[in-house]
Amino acid sequence: MTARTSRRAGGRQARQALRAAPLAKDSRPVHAGLEGGTYKPLTPEGMKRIHQAALDALEQVGLADAPPSGIEIMTRAGAILGDDGRLRFPRALVEDMLAKAAKDITLCGRDPQNDLNLSGNRVHYGTAGAAVHLVDAEGREYRDSTVQDLHDAARIADRLDNIHFLQRPMVCRDIPDNREMDLNSIYACVAGTTKHIGTSFTEPDFVDDGIELLHMIAGGEDKWRARPFVSNSNCFVVPPMKFATESCEVMEKVIAAGMPVLLLSAGMATATAPPTLAGTIVQAVAECLAGVVYVNAISPGHPAIFGTWPFVVDLRSGAMSGGSGEQALLTAGCSQMHQFYGLPGGAAAGFSDAKLPDMQAGWEQMCSNVMAGLSGLNMVYEAAGMHASLLGFCHESLILGDDIIGQALRCVRGIEVTEDAVSLDMMKSVCLGGPGHYLGEDQTLSLMQTEYAYPTLGDRTSPKEWAEVGKPDLVQAAKARKEAILAEPSRAHLDQALDQEIRARFNIHLPT
Amino acid sequence: MTARTSRRAGGRQARQALRAAPLAKDSRPVHAGLEGGTYKPLTPEGMKRIHQAALDALEQVGLADAPPSGIEIMTRAGAILGDDGRLRFPRALVEDMLAKAAKDITLCGRDPQNDLNLSGNRVHYGTAGAAVHLVDAEGREYRDSTVQDLHDAARIADRLDNIHFLQRPMVCRDIPDNREMDLNSIYACVAGTTKHIGTSFTEPDFVDDGIELLHMIAGGEDKWRARPFVSNSNCFVVPPMKFATESCEVMEKVIAAGMPVLLLSAGMATATAPPTLAGTIVQAVAECLAGVVYVNAISPGHPAIFGTWPFVVDLRSGAMSGGSGEQALLTAGCSQMHQFYGLPGGAAAGFSDAKLPDMQAGWEQMCSNVMAGLSGLNMVYEAAGMHASLLGFCHESLILGDDIIGQALRCVRGIEVTEDAVSLDMMKSVCLGGPGHYLGEDQTLSLMQTEYAYPTLGDRTSPKEWAEVGKPDLVQAAKARKEAILAEPSRAHLDQALDQEIRARFNIHLPT
Repeated sequence: MTARTSRRAGGRQARQALRAAPLAKDSRPVHAGLEGGTYKPLTPEGMKRIHQAALDALEQVGLADAPPSGIEIMTRAGAILGDDGRLRFPRALVEDMLAKAAKDITLCGRDPQNDLNLSGNRVHYGTAGAAVHLVDAEGREYRDSTVQDLHDAARIADRLDNIHFLQRPMVCRDIPDNREMDLNSIYACVAGTTKHIGTSFTEPDFVDDGIELLHMIAGGEDKWRARPFVSNSNCFVVPPMKFATESCEVMEKVIAAGMPVLLLSAGMATATAPPTLAGTIVQAVAECLAGVVYVNAISPGHPAIFGTWPFVVDLRSGAMSGGSGEQALLTAGCSQMHQFYGLPGGAAAGFSDAKLPDMQAGWEQMCSNVMAGLSGLNMVYEAAGMHASLLGFCHESLILGDDIIGQALRCVRGIEVTEDAVSLDMMKSVCLGGPGHYLGEDQTLSLMQTEYAYPTLGDRTSPKEWAEVGKPDLVQAAKARKEAILAEPSRAHLDQALDQEIRARFNIHLPT
Repeated sequence: MTARTSRRAGGRQARQALRAAPLAKDSRPVHAGLEGGTYKPLTPEGMKRIHQAALDALEQVGLADAPPSGIEIMTRAGAILGDDGRLRFPRALVEDMLAKAAKDITLCGRDPQNDLNLSGNRVHYGTAGAAVHLVDAEGREYRDSTVQDLHDAARIADRLDNIHFLQRPMVCRDIPDNREMDLNSIYACVAGTTKHIGTSFTEPDFVDDGIELLHMIAGGEDKWRARPFVSNSNCFVVPPMKFATESCEVMEKVIAAGMPVLLLSAGMATATAPPTLAGTIVQAVAECLAGVVYVNAISPGHPAIFGTWPFVVDLRSGAMSGGSGEQALLTAGCSQMHQFYGLPGGAAAGFSDAKLPDMQAGWEQMCSNVMAGLSGLNMVYEAAGMHASLLGFCHESLILGDDIIGQALRCVRGIEVTEDAVSLDMMKSVCLGGPGHYLGEDQTLSLMQTEYAYPTLGDRTSPKEWAEVGKPDLVQAAKARKEAILAEPSRAHLDQALDQEIRARFNIHLPT
């Protein structure tokens, strides 16, 4: 009888009751690791052509500036050192190393619930970058970013369902000593979130301290090696086609320490990469293939992410144009090349050229984020909070980015065309003598929970309701959420005894 | 010598000189009619399943409420009238009519340069809707929309490269008489733009006046029929599975008058359409196939647009959620079904639930616009200016939408992987003893004009430059552009003698 009553009333009571109950994590409409791949900017022929051109580039142009240790490692594997100092890579060597490379890898969170499974076209979104400014959205100001800003970003990201990992988005400019900065960056991230973390080392000499800190946090080297929850974002090349000598030395050290590596090639189309989008992808692929050879010559199957991160320059000014359509295409095209090789891959999307979280920021962040997701990119870096072409990071924007990514993930999930989904039974019962609408149907009630994603701050009120609630401002709402999150204790805080031990060993800048 | 000098300087002088020269229309990076289709949310099996379910629905459920004239027309063609008053459509009838239906159609602009070629996966963006409010972006207010607002929208759209057609986006609420409102809507649009126009008629009786007005503007019936520059947006069904009796009568009249028809089915997923996205597409396709039968039974090959426009309801509130990922998926999925039938098609994208042109508006408008374009949708309706889930239209947002669509079109254009694009010659000359960057290469200079799309108002300054120029506000910049456009005379104004003739015959509310 109740069912019949609510059906007559369009099921409103039933819908309200349902919304009051929390949704189990695995039945949420969107989550980390949804499979993309419905968007394919490259044809199969295009991918083969890019692959062949990349092999040609490795064979004929090669890469300069490998460190002596890298030359030793790679020539022993079969690379050829030319009189011009460049390492060249025969096709067979590249193909051998592709066969040895780790295919399906897991990036661990400190909490195993946050583990990321990088296989197939599974999509994950997170932060990244090295912004030097914190954006004060309300005050419309840019100021130097600090270790506290970084820690706050980690704590906020920890609470956002659609931010799946935290690669360090900001540089701690209040810590002038680079060794201390690297160490404190790790500490600020780890103490703020149990999600997987990415960070980098300025110099090879700083790696040992970082690894020691991670051993302490993990509870010993064996526990760290079993579940390494921090990966190394490594700009191992300086495009075009040169190794970054010191970063390569960092890479050799972190591989020995069991840390996953993001092989990051960040060419700039028209400047440090060719002016055609396809040519830029060729170069990024060639550089990352060199990285695959390097890593697997050191340690076959070591977890590495194929990090083709080409950017775009606006040649009118020489500035980056991260919010452009060209950027979205480069990232999606690279994503397809990762799938071509069957390797876990990452690229940059979701960052904006806008200085503030305004309409431009919204359209730019959505464009590349949704295209990256639809293309099936495993790791979408820079996906939230990033402004001014990577120069500024904004906490309010990070919070709004959670809504953007939630919507992008709903698009990634796609349209399920099962027999049940297209069944005529309901249409018949509704149209042929039924109520003439679908509001009260049982399937409607269950699907509104599992099929539809709802924004957290995105506003869907009518103009009338909106006026009645005082015309809320989106950035103000994000600020309020930020303050609420930061008013609570960090969920990822370290055990007090361990924290004291760490602070006794290292100069930790964050207050206890 | 000059070339060599500029090459040393990174080519800055050459780039500046190039930017000073205007770009020929056909070599612009983006334009109307670019081919989409790289994004395919539906598998071939999924499309077949939707098609079969739609045929089943037409055969077993059918549509109620056809007008007597329509029953006569469609039963004569082979539809079956049931005892329940519903018209049912045998599969063979639908297939016959699909064979007769116009495949490649041209929508004419009053200026032939603005003609739209609706074939293949060619993509065009424009306005649409029936907003009842004009959004004052600066004052954060909603007020009743007027005929002047509509005319201003037309004049602004006429000047925006990436707005390819103007379907009437707002209702003239200052004209209480519906006959006069319909007529003045046509006048306000035509007098504002030479792009293709879409409009609607409230009642069948109002069609004759409208056609008379169009004959006058065209310079005679023969000229109108040769190049009909206004199409009829016709909500010929009331989902689920009912004809809209009066709109059908309008349709019969405009077909007789040679006006192209947009067969618009606007179901609401979970309310007037099934709760699954796939089921909603099935119903929209079934309803539009009924429209194809109807149109082609009247006049085989009459130009008609397959207008599957399903919307989404947020069941928590009963409000529409036009900015949702579900909406973007519905539109892109429908687009693929148009291609399945090889029919020119249209759907809604780019409208926002946000009340103002803020960050939410940006991400919502981009999400569905870029996915619609990548899916190859011929006519992307509601693509700019639309807020509050279709209740409000905003001139500033229309202007900013031009930037959004420009970027979306760049994504539609895609990545060209030609032999030339991946050629190693440049990489060799740059890397092997060359300058180590691509800035001064000849190809770079030419491609920056033809390969890269630049925003008009989107800001790419550095934080430092941005502060120096006073931290410009995006909405203020759009307002300034609006005022500049409206300060100039309309480019589409009617000849004075003709205008007097029209005003003598009809009550035109716009001042001369």
